[in-house]
Amino acid sequence: MPAPAQHRIIFDTDPGVDDAMALLLALRSPEIDVVGLTTVFGNSTVDVTTRNALNLLALAGRTDIPVARGAGCPLVMPLGGTGEWVHGDDAMGNVGWHAQLDPAQRPVDKHAAEFIVEQVMAHPGEITLVPVAPLTNLALALRLEPRVARNVRQVVMMGGAALSPGNVSPVAEANIYGDPHAADIVFAAEWPIVMAGLDLTESMHADNRIWHLLRDSGDPFGVFLARAVGFYQSFHATWYGLENGATYMHDPCTIAYLIDPTLFEGEDWAITVPVEGPAKGATIVDRRGKFYKTPKVHCLLKGDETGLLRLFQQRLAKIPPQ
Amino acid sequence: MPAPAQHRIIFDTDPGVDDAMALLLALRSPEIDVVGLTTVFGNSTVDVTTRNALNLLALAGRTDIPVARGAGCPLVMPLGGTGEWVHGDDAMGNVGWHAQLDPAQRPVDKHAAEFIVEQVMAHPGEITLVPVAPLTNLALALRLEPRVARNVRQVVMMGGAALSPGNVSPVAEANIYGDPHAADIVFAAEWPIVMAGLDLTESMHADNRIWHLLRDSGDPFGVFLARAVGFYQSFHATWYGLENGATYMHDPCTIAYLIDPTLFEGEDWAITVPVEGPAKGATIVDRRGKFYKTPKVHCLLKGDETGLLRLFQQRLAKIPPQ
Repeated sequence: MPAPAQHRIIFDTDPGVDDAMALLLALRSPEIDVVGLTTVFGNSTVDVTTRNALNLLALAGRTDIPVARGAGCPLVMPLGGTGEWVHGDDAMGNVGWHAQLDPAQRPVDKHAAEFIVEQVMAHPGEITLVPVAPLTNLALALRLEPRVARNVRQVVMMGGAALSPGNVSPVAEANIYGDPHAADIVFAAEWPIVMAGLDLTESMHADNRIWHLLRDSGDPFGVFLARAVGFYQSFHATWYGLENGATYMHDPCTIAYLIDPTLFEGEDWAITVPVEGPAKGATIVDRRGKFYKTPKVHCLLKGDETGLLRLFQQRLAKIPPQ
Repeated sequence: MPAPAQHRIIFDTDPGVDDAMALLLALRSPEIDVVGLTTVFGNSTVDVTTRNALNLLALAGRTDIPVARGAGCPLVMPLGGTGEWVHGDDAMGNVGWHAQLDPAQRPVDKHAAEFIVEQVMAHPGEITLVPVAPLTNLALALRLEPRVARNVRQVVMMGGAALSPGNVSPVAEANIYGDPHAADIVFAAEWPIVMAGLDLTESMHADNRIWHLLRDSGDPFGVFLARAVGFYQSFHATWYGLENGATYMHDPCTIAYLIDPTLFEGEDWAITVPVEGPAKGATIVDRRGKFYKTPKVHCLLKGDETGLLRLFQQRLAKIPPQ
């Protein structure tokens, strides 16, 4: 009998190429039980990200996992730009996902925020929330039922930039910029948060050594990701000047952290998010510990890139552990 | 015949203990000709800082140098807190300056901003502005006469925090926070700016080794600074936990940079200043060079502390060069 999963997660997502990397890594990891997916705008509209979430589960043969469709726009602001310029017109690297792979698939009949509240309150202390997108669904869940904060096990998120430059402004990372009001609510709540921001995720690259290995592996997960990553690689070459097909491993850092937190190091700082002006969407960290009274967030600042890539290739290219 | 001074400066100041350190260092430096002082609110009200500017010149026997009184409040905002908690009730370390040392001294009969415009336009390409206070007078000068930007030699300022934490909020340094609208105008103007921000100045300490040396030197400048620094030392011990009487050398970094720029290293980044919200007064630097179109500011990031202290003690404690 296999050991039980150590983490029961709700993956809050806007797939997205790196969302797909993270989700398929989670589905291949015995340490992780994916309780459900919740979707949100971000890398594309919520219509597209919900379709992509359903398609990823169909591809993985895991249509047993529920998908709850969530927010189509930020809590307060109108919907701004979405991420097709990074992730392709279908937000999945232009693999041609213009419809559902399985037309019979349906999201569950409740909002993502309601799904989060229901699951967390039904399993107090057990559920880990893994948001890798704008934090609108989590903020709505906190407003629907404030007790979710005390009843989740933890929140492990991709987003923000504690010390590193932002990627959509000099200080703002895209997920936080997408809904800064929601992010500020999430950082102010009384739940334990681990933040995998650009400080960490831009130090974690996979290049053609990994992508060719996945492509040639015969593993359907690996082969799919190697196909989807091409557009994402072009973006990284053009925008960041990365070489040899390298891409940042943003969202997979959250799943890798759950599997092996010893790969990562960070600092505990309270965070506030400006909601307007040139600092909109920044994650301001109180490094001196003198100014903010909100709970401290564990901000990951560096990680073991080799360890992350070993995990990634072992689980997505059927490479046996070395 | 001595070599002519290499730098003709207008010192824009809110004295202030470290303003006094910088000014007395400048007055003892043959490389620097102090054309005038302009005063502004900041470490105290403009009444107090103007009195202190006059008193410092009286102390130094340099009442030939004109003082132009400037802004008493920020460009747009109401006057916020002043710095007596750092610099003492008289803003000079409680040395007891409650009146003018020489009652006959008077500021010149024009506003600091007018004085700046007049001097800069009369000597195109020659004047270096050295603001070590809120940037209100410089912003007013730019609005009175936009051509000052093209006619100064350079601006060498103390203020801001490019990568380091702020000192009055997690991101804001006090001089910028004191008038963020003015700072944003100054950073957007077409003049060459060198910014000695907290990145540099909090890496430059003088401790009791220096302060006792000045105290025991018999040099009236050194003895005065050693007396004025006591309150400032207590602040640094209490607020920052510095030991052995250490203080940050904020304002003197500007003068040391003029004397020997090879002591310092930095990066060129465009800067924007948020004027409200939790990032108010931050100096946001565009490290990726992708976002801002304004001129780049040379942001000093580190310096040779030993070199700075050698200069300081040689010139203010009559210690011969080693």
